[in-house]
Amino acid sequence: MTALDELKARLLEVDDLKSAASLLRWDQATYMPPGGAVARGRQTSTLGRLAHEKFTDIAIGRLLDQLERETASMPHDSDDASLVRVTRHHYEQAVRIPASLVSACDEHAAKSYQAWTLARPANDFATMVPLLEKTLELSRQRANCFPGYASIADPLIDVSDFGMKAEAMRSLFSTLRTRLLPIVRAITSRSPIDNACLRQHAPLADQLAFGQQVIEAFGYDSARGRLDLTHHPFMTKFSLGDVRITTRVRENAFLDALFITLHECGHALYAQGIRKELDGTPLADVPSAGIDESQSRLWENLVGRSRGFWEHFFPKLQHAFRKQLGNVSLDTFYRAINRVECGLIRGGADEVTYNLHVMLRFDLELDLLEGRLAVKDLARTWRERFEADFGIAVPDDRDGVLQDVHWYDGPIGGAFQGYTLGNIMSAQFFAAATAAQPEIPTQIARGEFGTLHHWLRGNVYQHGKKFTASEVIRHATGNDMSVEPYLDYLWNKFQPLYGLTERDRMTLA
Amino acid sequence: MTALDELKARLLEVDDLKSAASLLRWDQATYMPPGGAVARGRQTSTLGRLAHEKFTDIAIGRLLDQLERETASMPHDSDDASLVRVTRHHYEQAVRIPASLVSACDEHAAKSYQAWTLARPANDFATMVPLLEKTLELSRQRANCFPGYASIADPLIDVSDFGMKAEAMRSLFSTLRTRLLPIVRAITSRSPIDNACLRQHAPLADQLAFGQQVIEAFGYDSARGRLDLTHHPFMTKFSLGDVRITTRVRENAFLDALFITLHECGHALYAQGIRKELDGTPLADVPSAGIDESQSRLWENLVGRSRGFWEHFFPKLQHAFRKQLGNVSLDTFYRAINRVECGLIRGGADEVTYNLHVMLRFDLELDLLEGRLAVKDLARTWRERFEADFGIAVPDDRDGVLQDVHWYDGPIGGAFQGYTLGNIMSAQFFAAATAAQPEIPTQIARGEFGTLHHWLRGNVYQHGKKFTASEVIRHATGNDMSVEPYLDYLWNKFQPLYGLTERDRMTLA
Repeated sequence: MTALDELKARLLEVDDLKSAASLLRWDQATYMPPGGAVARGRQTSTLGRLAHEKFTDIAIGRLLDQLERETASMPHDSDDASLVRVTRHHYEQAVRIPASLVSACDEHAAKSYQAWTLARPANDFATMVPLLEKTLELSRQRANCFPGYASIADPLIDVSDFGMKAEAMRSLFSTLRTRLLPIVRAITSRSPIDNACLRQHAPLADQLAFGQQVIEAFGYDSARGRLDLTHHPFMTKFSLGDVRITTRVRENAFLDALFITLHECGHALYAQGIRKELDGTPLADVPSAGIDESQSRLWENLVGRSRGFWEHFFPKLQHAFRKQLGNVSLDTFYRAINRVECGLIRGGADEVTYNLHVMLRFDLELDLLEGRLAVKDLARTWRERFEADFGIAVPDDRDGVLQDVHWYDGPIGGAFQGYTLGNIMSAQFFAAATAAQPEIPTQIARGEFGTLHHWLRGNVYQHGKKFTASEVIRHATGNDMSVEPYLDYLWNKFQPLYGLTERDRMTLA
Repeated sequence: MTALDELKARLLEVDDLKSAASLLRWDQATYMPPGGAVARGRQTSTLGRLAHEKFTDIAIGRLLDQLERETASMPHDSDDASLVRVTRHHYEQAVRIPASLVSACDEHAAKSYQAWTLARPANDFATMVPLLEKTLELSRQRANCFPGYASIADPLIDVSDFGMKAEAMRSLFSTLRTRLLPIVRAITSRSPIDNACLRQHAPLADQLAFGQQVIEAFGYDSARGRLDLTHHPFMTKFSLGDVRITTRVRENAFLDALFITLHECGHALYAQGIRKELDGTPLADVPSAGIDESQSRLWENLVGRSRGFWEHFFPKLQHAFRKQLGNVSLDTFYRAINRVECGLIRGGADEVTYNLHVMLRFDLELDLLEGRLAVKDLARTWRERFEADFGIAVPDDRDGVLQDVHWYDGPIGGAFQGYTLGNIMSAQFFAAATAAQPEIPTQIARGEFGTLHHWLRGNVYQHGKKFTASEVIRHATGNDMSVEPYLDYLWNKFQPLYGLTERDRMTLA
């Protein structure tokens, strides 16, 4: 057996354990009876521990040492060289953090999460302050396992968005924020769009069936996946032949389920599109949270909330929901699903304001980690910043600093940037795809998605994790990541919807 | 940490791996998309291999050595002494068979099963002869890992029905067969019962819902389990808090699904009834295949096909299936579900003839293992014995020697006896329960099962695998296993159904 074969066999065993753990979690969220919960938690954690033990075996380090020499002369994009390179990165991530710190973080996260589930409904940030202070301290300790960083946030960001640096993102986000704020102001100065047609009841099964119909048109392969219902929607993968999504359907939130389904389908199209030769290795994954999110947002928003998409699908939707939409025009409907609204909550925010929510959190994370902000001042700072960005007051911490689970069940740092990176890249990929294949918008308006799907698969999905997000975006679009395509997209879409003027645009630039 | 704590921690890890593997198999049978099959097979086998590695660790042997000394003076029924005793038995089973023989058996079984899937439809026993000869040779090698047996079948029987010996069973089965044959002859000399009322179409969802209603009345705890659909029905357990069953529903096989559901529910009531302190250990299991089957058959047949049960449930069944049963009387219906018929196939055979199918296979297994029968003569011998027992000719090997998967995907020896042991014990347990609680039949006729369930839980289920099947039956019924209660049960039930006379009974004795 060659060293490469041995590495692959060991990685496959780790992948089997992790995939089994993923199935245990999927089952817990979908079909598990309540009586199974206690044992299930232990079983999932046993599989995770064994996967970690197997992956951090010193033998893997030795194989990597040897294979790094053997693959040194291979091209950067060779499967084998990429496998060694990416595995080395994961391996260092896994072995450099002492087991004692990992378990301290896990224990603290469980305690903090438990407290948060009570503190949020009680609107009680004060209780969370000492817990968050400990979280911040543990997050810094994690970061310090990877010395040599420019910002202490960099190693934390690396976990989800490998290669992205705090400084580069701060600059990117600052441009985006400066240019988004005026458009938000301009939109909120106009009359709100009427979205009464969405505030109706609709049967659960019909909502679910419509989503299923659309994702199959997108190209989701149901022979290699399935759609189920869960409280929190997600995509999960047990192999490249079994990529499942879940959605949430509410009778009184007509169409929410559809957009959630399209979002998760975007993640699934990515996973289903990875070259099957990479299955069972660390390369059968996405390069980063941001690039993963770019595809969920592309299919949900750039396709699923586009006028062209609904030219084809609105008659079908009317047919399925005659009672709700029989007397609604395409124009009214299209405007309703794209209504912009300054709200308190990030989850479910519209395309324009969503990033303001994310950037607020990202900036506060950096301020906390880099020592410019104390945890005890976090809630107040949140309210000030929110009011500055959104122009509305935050009435309580429940819908302010306590609203997202992220800081309360995991580290501070690295949790949020991916959402906005995803939005930025979604427009950049879509612009590159339509530049290469100008027939894409016309096809979408006919309910055909094959050309778009094919371009994305060829330029993004198939490579899995062989390349970093920066490499993928450069190869696929010919440019580094940039906010321009995204700002152009937002302007071209929302200018006519809200009757924005050239003067609003000038303010943007 | 004490030695006992360490043993328990190691066994819990093994149990976590095995339970995860069980969930992977459940998902494969219920919801997995076809694309997941290849990776799933590998993942399940990785978990099984790791569980085996962890369980056969020399450290477990050392802990057992120490703990056998420590628990020597404890009572036989103490949890700790039982854990050490039962774990020792499993450990010896696992370590005495060389890894090379295990993998030779696994490889051969896969090859043989593959060939059987083609040979059965082609009615081609000749192809299977060399494969079965190899299976027989490997089965003997397995048995010879446990020297000191009286019959070479004993170690193979031990795997599923621990403690049962070929000689004792041969004698038990011989009595049963001698006394069953005349009653079969007598019944088949009478006019067949009309079962037209069962040969109707009925909607799948209604069939499923009716079964769900009955098992909840039996006491199946849906907060600790669920019911799903699969091609082959089964019960599976991921912890004592998550005991699932599956059933098969066919639109044109009205009521098959119900009896399958009741059968699997019997297995599940057993598992759900094990004391929760035993969860995660080898004691959270059934003592043997036979005793497990005794409970599926008890709830399916002694309860579910009884006249009293239908006095309560038939009006409900008529209500749910008005079209099919609106004009059918309870008597006609009761007779139909208890029709006896000499057929070629074991699966789904009636209560009277079922054991003849099993005993034929058991005797042939012994003849093969003990060298009285050559594989090349097996098909012919099968036909001769079948015609002698059932009075009908076997038209082909497809529905003869090739009909069951057992010998073709596993060893020869130990595969069949549990079915008939289960039937025998089901009547013995039921007789003991009604002797102790004479109100049970009246309660069943009111749709109440609490007293029966409580007696079975207290006398059988709660102990899990602490005792052997022989110990359980002796403690619960005050007697060793005996065919008398079963023969009494069959006589009392089928005598009036078929108008059997005292003369038929005399022939029996």
